[in-house]
Amino acid sequence: MSKELREHIEAITRLTDDEFEYIISHFTVKKLKKHRFLVQADEPVTNDFWVRKGLLIAYYSNDQGKEHIMQFAMEDWWITDYQAYFNQSKATLNVVCLEDTEVLCLSLHNREKICRELHKIEHFFRRKSNAGYIALQKRILTFLDSSAKERYEQFLMQYPSLLQRIPKTLIASYLGVSRETLSRLSS
Amino acid sequence: MSKELREHIEAITRLTDDEFEYIISHFTVKKLKKHRFLVQADEPVTNDFWVRKGLLIAYYSNDQGKEHIMQFAMEDWWITDYQAYFNQSKATLNVVCLEDTEVLCLSLHNREKICRELHKIEHFFRRKSNAGYIALQKRILTFLDSSAKERYEQFLMQYPSLLQRIPKTLIASYLGVSRETLSRLSS
Repeated sequence: MSKELREHIEAITRLTDDEFEYIISHFTVKKLKKHRFLVQADEPVTNDFWVRKGLLIAYYSNDQGKEHIMQFAMEDWWITDYQAYFNQSKATLNVVCLEDTEVLCLSLHNREKICRELHKIEHFFRRKSNAGYIALQKRILTFLDSSAKERYEQFLMQYPSLLQRIPKTLIASYLGVSRETLSRLSS
Repeated sequence: MSKELREHIEAITRLTDDEFEYIISHFTVKKLKKHRFLVQADEPVTNDFWVRKGLLIAYYSNDQGKEHIMQFAMEDWWITDYQAYFNQSKATLNVVCLEDTEVLCLSLHNREKICRELHKIEHFFRRKSNAGYIALQKRILTFLDSSAKERYEQFLMQYPSLLQRIPKTLIASYLGVSRETLSRLSS
């Protein structure tokens, strides 16, 4: 069903054909057009999403309607509202498609089931979570220690391919800088 | 050796006496006086530390000598330079004791060994990592969306017991606000 997902998992742990078939049977496929939502604030969060094709953002919209980007996700990345997903609570984030998108969906029930049944999948998700934790610590350090200019330059270095696909306003929101500042930096 | 560590693990997964004895045999104990370092920038990071007693901070010191707090840790929390620990690279953070401290140390080699040998320990660490990931996402959202005042109030709500034990300057550094701002808020 998805050799890309198999490659993604096998970057961390090797699988037999049977194991992969069993794992993939716990996912469902979803295709969405640009502008459609995978997660909406105040609604239950059923799934974690692995991106096979497309581009998405998870964002928070505050009471004044100001939006802040929590994360991007493109091919081979995972995205959802993790707080709501793991705690099975209502979403505080929205996840929306910036391009036509195809994702593989994994419910928390199925995630816990395959982690319990297959030790190597528990290992895979532990390793992914550790890597995610480190990436968030790095991002926190940029908020504490870097200027808007430095944050923008780091973003360029880290995600050169995203730059072509994402509007500048969204990058500004991700970096926590004003659109005007970003325009000055990127002109 | 440490019934507190057993309780800490068993909040997520139950262990037999034999299992716990085996797990704890992979830890070593370390006692340090106030002001001593567990991790120092530019040195290898051998261990992750579970705090049995005491209080520590992990902080980043930039080229100009300005310091930023990445995390606190008190009893029952884990702390290290995770990027350096998981990647087995040199530390960019320092971890220092704010009080006389006793920690249980787990090397990456031993962590991976007990995770491989005991599926339930891999499960335990995956769950801890997921919870840590969610906590960091919340902190990022406070940088993006909250004022200094709101950040300070959230900190009070989240960690009331830390407030008595930690100097205001360090809280200011953790929140990314100036010491003057914090003094105004907390007076």
